[in-house]
Amino acid sequence: MIKRIAVLTTGGDAPGMNAAIRAVVRYGIYKKLEVMGVFRGWWGLINEELRLLDHRSVSGIINQGGTILKTARCQEFRTEEGQKRAYEVIKKNCIDALVVIGGDGSFRAAHEFYKKYGVFCIGIPASIDNDINGIEMTIGLDTAINTALSAIDNIRDTATSLERVFVVEVMGRDCGYIALKVALAGGCEEVIIPERRYNLEEICHDIVEGNLRGKISWIIVVAEGAASAQEIAQKINEMTSLETRAVVLGHIQRGGRPTAFSRDLALRLGQIAVDCLLRGEKDKVVGLHDEKIISVDFARAIQKKDLRIEELYHLVKVLS
Amino acid sequence: MIKRIAVLTTGGDAPGMNAAIRAVVRYGIYKKLEVMGVFRGWWGLINEELRLLDHRSVSGIINQGGTILKTARCQEFRTEEGQKRAYEVIKKNCIDALVVIGGDGSFRAAHEFYKKYGVFCIGIPASIDNDINGIEMTIGLDTAINTALSAIDNIRDTATSLERVFVVEVMGRDCGYIALKVALAGGCEEVIIPERRYNLEEICHDIVEGNLRGKISWIIVVAEGAASAQEIAQKINEMTSLETRAVVLGHIQRGGRPTAFSRDLALRLGQIAVDCLLRGEKDKVVGLHDEKIISVDFARAIQKKDLRIEELYHLVKVLS
Amino acid sequence: MIKRIAVLTTGGDAPGMNAAIRAVVRYGIYKKLEVMGVFRGWWGLINEELRLLDHRSVSGIINQGGTILKTARCQEFRTEEGQKRAYEVIKKNCIDALVVIGGDGSFRAAHEFYKKYGVFCIGIPASIDNDINGIEMTIGLDTAINTALSAIDNIRDTATSLERVFVVEVMGRDCGYIALKVALAGGCEEVIIPERRYNLEEICHDIVEGNLRGKISWIIVVAEGAASAQEIAQKINEMTSLETRAVVLGHIQRGGRPTAFSRDLALRLGQIAVDCLLRGEKDKVVGLHDEKIISVDFARAIQKKDLRIEELYHLVKVLS
Amino acid sequence: MIKRIAVLTTGGDAPGMNAAIRAVVRYGIYKKLEVMGVFRGWWGLINEELRLLDHRSVSGIINQGGTILKTARCQEFRTEEGQKRAYEVIKKNCIDALVVIGGDGSFRAAHEFYKKYGVFCIGIPASIDNDINGIEMTIGLDTAINTALSAIDNIRDTATSLERVFVVEVMGRDCGYIALKVALAGGCEEVIIPERRYNLEEICHDIVEGNLRGKISWIIVVAEGAASAQEIAQKINEMTSLETRAVVLGHIQRGGRPTAFSRDLALRLGQIAVDCLLRGEKDKVVGLHDEKIISVDFARAIQKKDLRIEELYHLVKVLS
Repeated sequence: MIKRIAVLTTGGDAPGMNAAIRAVVRYGIYKKLEVMGVFRGWWGLINEELRLLDHRSVSGIINQGGTILKTARCQEFRTEEGQKRAYEVIKKNCIDALVVIGGDGSFRAAHEFYKKYGVFCIGIPASIDNDINGIEMTIGLDTAINTALSAIDNIRDTATSLERVFVVEVMGRDCGYIALKVALAGGCEEVIIPERRYNLEEICHDIVEGNLRGKISWIIVVAEGAASAQEIAQKINEMTSLETRAVVLGHIQRGGRPTAFSRDLALRLGQIAVDCLLRGEKDKVVGLHDEKIISVDFARAIQKKDLRIEELYHLVKVLS
Repeated sequence: MIKRIAVLTTGGDAPGMNAAIRAVVRYGIYKKLEVMGVFRGWWGLINEELRLLDHRSVSGIINQGGTILKTARCQEFRTEEGQKRAYEVIKKNCIDALVVIGGDGSFRAAHEFYKKYGVFCIGIPASIDNDINGIEMTIGLDTAINTALSAIDNIRDTATSLERVFVVEVMGRDCGYIALKVALAGGCEEVIIPERRYNLEEICHDIVEGNLRGKISWIIVVAEGAASAQEIAQKINEMTSLETRAVVLGHIQRGGRPTAFSRDLALRLGQIAVDCLLRGEKDKVVGLHDEKIISVDFARAIQKKDLRIEELYHLVKVLS
Repeated sequence: MIKRIAVLTTGGDAPGMNAAIRAVVRYGIYKKLEVMGVFRGWWGLINEELRLLDHRSVSGIINQGGTILKTARCQEFRTEEGQKRAYEVIKKNCIDALVVIGGDGSFRAAHEFYKKYGVFCIGIPASIDNDINGIEMTIGLDTAINTALSAIDNIRDTATSLERVFVVEVMGRDCGYIALKVALAGGCEEVIIPERRYNLEEICHDIVEGNLRGKISWIIVVAEGAASAQEIAQKINEMTSLETRAVVLGHIQRGGRPTAFSRDLALRLGQIAVDCLLRGEKDKVVGLHDEKIISVDFARAIQKKDLRIEELYHLVKVLS
Repeated sequence: MIKRIAVLTTGGDAPGMNAAIRAVVRYGIYKKLEVMGVFRGWWGLINEELRLLDHRSVSGIINQGGTILKTARCQEFRTEEGQKRAYEVIKKNCIDALVVIGGDGSFRAAHEFYKKYGVFCIGIPASIDNDINGIEMTIGLDTAINTALSAIDNIRDTATSLERVFVVEVMGRDCGYIALKVALAGGCEEVIIPERRYNLEEICHDIVEGNLRGKISWIIVVAEGAASAQEIAQKINEMTSLETRAVVLGHIQRGGRPTAFSRDLALRLGQIAVDCLLRGEKDKVVGLHDEKIISVDFARAIQKKDLRIEELYHLVKVLS
């Protein structure tokens, strides 16, 4: 039976990570577990930067962006040496299982670690990239979408007033999910995503034709994995002679107070992660699917996510 | 085959109604329909306040709260006379079907209207009360929750600094959904909802005991359908002698820019409503269930909604 | 020459207090002073709840509402006994001077304390009531105005959609400043403030007449010191038969992230307060006047503030 | 005596322009003037795109970003031909005077136009660049600062969690005002502005030294007129080997709901502009100086603005 667990955040930070930490710690304690916090992800495990957390140590963080446990990329954990050192720290500190809050890279590492050393681990998906297969939404995604949408709303004010073409690049790595959702909810005229080929000539043709009908402002959302806003803007300018501006939202999408949904998801998944460990589950990601909390094997979770995008894309075009 | 539809918003306004109107109008036009906008809900139908809408007439409204079609309570539509008059206006204007954007009261009326006059109608649930049976979320709910949560975050600053007890009343009519979600995501210490009996003595006991352990700030969320914040605050003050303040969030929860989710849901449901009508469906509500868009008979939609609250309530208490 | 100062926050909390604390601590340390933080205002002085603060102890608080030093009302400090005890704590801890961050009540107390015990004290005005005479703006005021304005914007969505009369009560104690500013910037139709008599019959007459011209939504801002929104709403309803709703914004106006202006003012006043003490000044409030930082004797600062309101009120009426 | 005035918005849009339009129109009508709205700035004057505005035509715009009159750059107005054509349109439409809402480029044009054709014109400074000499703040500036600050707050979450160096570029053309204010209020570690030489080696030295003391996150604000965030980030990365990210806030700073201050200033300046014209004043900019509304000759307003920055810069460094 497990008595002590450790929680860590890895990969890029995402809004709601702190809420997830809070849930793991408080629900863990409620279930009579000891909960250790590991600082700076896998690096902290290797370097034994960890300490016991109590109920108070997670006070006042539920609405804070980022992660109080900090996070870091860690090349060392990809080496035999690093993994071995981490395992020793785990043994030395009597840690029975891990809760890893992070994205698909983190789960890949955790999966390998389990296979090699048998360390029980449950993953909580927190990332703004929504690239975990088998689950609907990652923690932080709803916040990132709303932050990007709010930026689009601002840009719309200028686009309409100055009657310009804007190309706005949003985050999401290889996944066009944020771009699609933001384009739809922002009433944008076009969206370019990695999952779908785009034809710039067609887009320019649409713009010029719209222009003739009197529609002069135009916002094109670009997923970072599909193209560079700068390049797209330049090409549109060359092809249409219309003033075209590029905006790269960048890291403002990562931080900020988590939305209600991001917090809610984080809190529920934190609880479930602890319950899973108590039931003896391991090597899994917990997540939301069809409005139910489920768990998915790491092996499946890290596969390429399949996104049905045609319908959404079509709706963006029809409603713009 | 239907050629002309009319869209109206009824009941209290909800953020996202405008996005729904936009989708019905533009998707309808895309599907070769004519779309009329009816002003002030049923009242506008009775008084023939309506006009044809084109693509441009719904420009720039996707991120605006409220409803450009306005809304109104209408006693007259509950009378034989009123319904008959509305029916005549529908015939006169060659309207083949209605899209009603509103809450459960609106759907009750539409259901009765269909039974009596055979007017085809599809309902789109938009209300911050989440009281539509069979579907997960109404349009506007996510926005209202985030608005209330943001207010709770603000109040937390004062509660922590001044070390006071706060009782915060949130909207939701007979439904404790907003209260529960806000209490959980806001890290609140207690929540009082209509679906669950509460024991004020126990709550006061918890507060006093927490006080002795050094926990002095306390936020109690109250659903408007369960109790009055004012009364609860007064009683807690009497029973514990601790300074206790009441805050009633009220109508600030209704307005504001819709969140990404509220807009997204509105746009998708607007599309589906039109598709339903084109397929000959009627007397139904469209909605989200298990992450899929479904339709539910009006007769079922207006029944009392069943909310599984025990789990959420438990989580609020464990994590506070 | 002074070597050690203490900083405390008293009265109601205001957004920006933390930024002021940060400035006093860091600028004080930069000027080779030791800075102690006193917890819970005067109460902490009496009960010796204080500790030395270093550069790190104020990290990450610049954008947080409330006050990390907490605040409290303290009856005991109004007694001879309490003041004497506070003085002893000051002596014992080798504190040479105080920086008091708070409102007019706090400065009254500090002024009396100086007169009786000669304790040097500089006040930093932080309060959402803007009741400090001789200076333009208190820390937190700009944030409170923006929070209230955002609530008004939300209510406007509903007022316009439902075509109702709304009466919105805002904070400000005996000062109508917030109410006036919010009414103007919110495009509100009427404002009721303590500094000006109001005539409800005239207001109702305007509403009814506006109604006849087709203007049906109406927002009336009420300063808490002038009247109760509930009562005004009820009377309007009785006199006009129009549905009228009351909203009391309450404590949501106190918290939240401080705006740029509130932070900026807090940081600059924190610096100036330290500079004043280093120059041997005392018994004064620092503040902004005509875009310059000035200092005002406590004795003058706590007098009734004179607000030129007629012009602003006139503008509200003309532009609505 | 003047009977009819025209209002136009020129240059880049700024939040609060709509509030200024509202004030000019409604206060003008209150003063018995006719007010025409010119679309797309000088272009609309040349092309006679204008129409009479009434009280209702500016309803519901007080809290909207951008400008309902639209704006445009207009090369043609710099030519003799263009100016002559504009003058003819003014005569033809019996326009006695202009209110120009815009930035320093707009006022340069208006000044020249007055000198050549004697057209009375009052300028209202609305621009996020704050480059109008002799007045404190332009309309929209406070909003742009708060928008940028909110982005910085978000980036801080990631900077602290990932322990990275961030270089954030903010708007402001040749003026470092926004950068300075944002750096101060955001608690940023460094700021690079056009008005002050910077030494990248020194900055890198500070970063590395801070790093050794355990301070690992670092936000450097760059004014667009001083340097490119991308280049600065790359150089810091080369010189320190620390991961350094660039973020360019860009056009999100232009739009969005105006803050209370931006609206308030816009409304008051709108009123004053009309009063100036009624008093026979001309060729001037109205603005805020030392908390009073003043007017400044165009000739002076378009000179290079003098900004006392050393003190603010010093405070940024001391408090970081």
